[in-house]
Amino acid sequence: MELKNLPYKLYLDESEMPSTWYNVRADMKNKPAPLIHPATLQPLKFEEMQPIFCDELIKQELDNDTRYIEIPEEILNFYKMYRPSPLTHAVFLEKALDTPAHIFYKFEGNNTSGSHKLNSAIAQAYYAKKQGLKGVTTETGAGQWGTALSMACAFFKLDCKVFMVKVSYEQKPFRREVMRTYGAEVTPSPSMNTNVGRKINAEHPGTTGSLGCAISEAVEVAVSSEGYRYVLGSVLNQVLLHQSIIGLETKKACEKFGIKPDIIVGCAGGGSNLGGLIAPFMGEKLRGEADYKFIAVEPASCPSFTRGKFAYDFCDTGKVCPMAKMYTLGHDFIPSPNHAGGLRYHGMSSVLSQLYHDGYMEARAVEQTKVFEAAEQFARTEGILPAPESSHAIRVAIDEALKCKETGEEKTIIIGLTGTGYFDMLAYEQFNNGTMTDYIPTDDDLAVGFAKIPNVAK
Amino acid sequence: MELKNLPYKLYLDESEMPSTWYNVRADMKNKPAPLIHPATLQPLKFEEMQPIFCDELIKQELDNDTRYIEIPEEILNFYKMYRPSPLTHAVFLEKALDTPAHIFYKFEGNNTSGSHKLNSAIAQAYYAKKQGLKGVTTETGAGQWGTALSMACAFFKLDCKVFMVKVSYEQKPFRREVMRTYGAEVTPSPSMNTNVGRKINAEHPGTTGSLGCAISEAVEVAVSSEGYRYVLGSVLNQVLLHQSIIGLETKKACEKFGIKPDIIVGCAGGGSNLGGLIAPFMGEKLRGEADYKFIAVEPASCPSFTRGKFAYDFCDTGKVCPMAKMYTLGHDFIPSPNHAGGLRYHGMSSVLSQLYHDGYMEARAVEQTKVFEAAEQFARTEGILPAPESSHAIRVAIDEALKCKETGEEKTIIIGLTGTGYFDMLAYEQFNNGTMTDYIPTDDDLAVGFAKIPNVAK
Repeated sequence: MELKNLPYKLYLDESEMPSTWYNVRADMKNKPAPLIHPATLQPLKFEEMQPIFCDELIKQELDNDTRYIEIPEEILNFYKMYRPSPLTHAVFLEKALDTPAHIFYKFEGNNTSGSHKLNSAIAQAYYAKKQGLKGVTTETGAGQWGTALSMACAFFKLDCKVFMVKVSYEQKPFRREVMRTYGAEVTPSPSMNTNVGRKINAEHPGTTGSLGCAISEAVEVAVSSEGYRYVLGSVLNQVLLHQSIIGLETKKACEKFGIKPDIIVGCAGGGSNLGGLIAPFMGEKLRGEADYKFIAVEPASCPSFTRGKFAYDFCDTGKVCPMAKMYTLGHDFIPSPNHAGGLRYHGMSSVLSQLYHDGYMEARAVEQTKVFEAAEQFARTEGILPAPESSHAIRVAIDEALKCKETGEEKTIIIGLTGTGYFDMLAYEQFNNGTMTDYIPTDDDLAVGFAKIPNVAK
Repeated sequence: MELKNLPYKLYLDESEMPSTWYNVRADMKNKPAPLIHPATLQPLKFEEMQPIFCDELIKQELDNDTRYIEIPEEILNFYKMYRPSPLTHAVFLEKALDTPAHIFYKFEGNNTSGSHKLNSAIAQAYYAKKQGLKGVTTETGAGQWGTALSMACAFFKLDCKVFMVKVSYEQKPFRREVMRTYGAEVTPSPSMNTNVGRKINAEHPGTTGSLGCAISEAVEVAVSSEGYRYVLGSVLNQVLLHQSIIGLETKKACEKFGIKPDIIVGCAGGGSNLGGLIAPFMGEKLRGEADYKFIAVEPASCPSFTRGKFAYDFCDTGKVCPMAKMYTLGHDFIPSPNHAGGLRYHGMSSVLSQLYHDGYMEARAVEQTKVFEAAEQFARTEGILPAPESSHAIRVAIDEALKCKETGEEKTIIIGLTGTGYFDMLAYEQFNNGTMTDYIPTDDDLAVGFAKIPNVAK
């Protein structure tokens, strides 16, 4: 591959931006299993989802057949404020590693939400606005999704109610203030504003909250308030659809600049980034037109793919959401508190779970001190201080590049660099001080979660 | 002006990036007054500066004649990691204001230091490395400059010692950790590691420090350590030279896309951003080739241009640095603690001071609550949460655009958007909570600073 005259940052022109999302489900022989109703164990019908989700988003959630879905003009216009995002040639990292491998990263952090989450937030806000809704509710943990949704809602003048896990609300006041600057109402969860919040506060006085509880509160407010719906930033099929913009741009840039990726690597929490990044490449692989090695990277402390079960499970701890078939550690699994950064979700996108189950992608679990070593090396050579989540992918990309150094192979590696770590400096501080530790759950630890997976035949 | 088919983000190709800096002093009839030695009151000679500054940077500091100075390849390569920066058409802000004005912003925040400071940091680190030095020392207040310098030093594997004003060190731990992640040694100032630090700690037990004190400590360590020099992120001629990359890119993008600016507006603390942004446009104005309205925006609480004196003054409170002729509030002037964000410097670049004195640019002082109102409006419409500093320029640009709405004039306004506010959320929190207040110093307040300006005939 001739890379000599390549610019560092491979930008598409605005006119080359994709105008459709790509729905990888259309090319999957084994479709992802449908969401089921926890009471009836039957696939959820459109009408059953309507109290919770926006109509158009339900259609996208259920649509396993339409390959390309047009991006509405209003969303495209918003995308143009921060997209196309650059595919950057990591020349300084390559030099530092002294590897024959070619490393590129698709950087989604150049927007105020600091991550790729904005790609789906703006779509979900748009459809809510189009349906004439007053507002949306959601939960946020570390705050990337809540920030993205706040920005999207400010743009469409939609009301935005965010339930933020209490410990993050208190420890990440800056994230909270970004959301408030965009006009969102941010409530620490569990709150005293909902039945489920009051119940949890009564049962666990002084609790600092959990994502599962925040989801339950957000859903309760959505279904009990006139003109509100609930929105979610990962896991769902619709989210992967919106995030396909990442992969479509990446693929187009590869074609424009003559890059042929061998390995595409991304971090996986709920799967929104990885699913979007690999989508069009996976499509080629599914159709037998090309082959790529896809690597999903997850924390060793929350190893859904590598140590989870492929089974139906609740999407939330509170069991108010539907059940999904996915790689899961059990909805009661809670990662060790020593784990920094995101990727703490017990389950995984059904689409990615099916693809992994069918052998179309690999997964690796990595320990966090090694992840932060990679993050530091990347920051010092490439200038960008990466999010802890993204740094999982950087870790494995560096490992693969070092393998190339041993074998002399000139592989081309693409990293999904989902975001920046500017609001994650507490974790970096631990690392800088040498007080960061690793934690790998024992089989007994995992058994606690697994025991809670309901036994659904399917 | 036909803007219909303009993309939102006006990018130069990498091949169109400027390969020289532009030295506006070459086109000034009245050159900026030289730095003088506080003891002899004579212009500082090269040899007198050598213990403090790198040789090549002293040459640039003293060079009032060379119009274009080549950017070394290593610096150009680093620039390519985050430059060219986009000149963005603020279509959504225009719509929100319902103005016939055309608004563009040159965005310098898309790098981990979060501001334009990196443009000069990498140049200064490069020349220090080239001179065979071990490292550099500097001070930082809010932390943008310290972060930028840390990144630059990590890239060239130079030692970096940052004295960070103690109150910021404690209140902005995240900034501190970004610097540490890049390998910098960050010391709260006043420290017990220097004579001047020990003296100040003894005289003012429990002091939370000041920029003036941090400068003194950084200079002491530089001159007393083998292989170290001191570097500074603003005010100096050399810094404005490096920052001319902002204006050169802006001008090239204007030419490429057919934009003719009427008004160019930037915030002014020490002048590094504004001086860089306007440089090549000012050159045209000085040579009589074109006319532009340049507006320097400063906080009403620290009004160097609008209420300062044009006189020789010390650059630092500790009087260890040379004296410069500039618009100054007196080196003992300390802005009210209620003032959020940067732009707290008592003086101003000698270059900009001379140009302002000679009538080539205007200045406006704005109050901070109005600044944050503009910041919020910009964040909600354009997606980027701006730094408080940059928001001063946004305030005035919005005011000018609203004037156009009244008069029907279709003026073209360019804003220097120096950076993001991600590490300034304490100030946003004050604004969001409605507890932010304004402060305009009385003439008596200012007299305290003015009284300390030494009476140097020149």
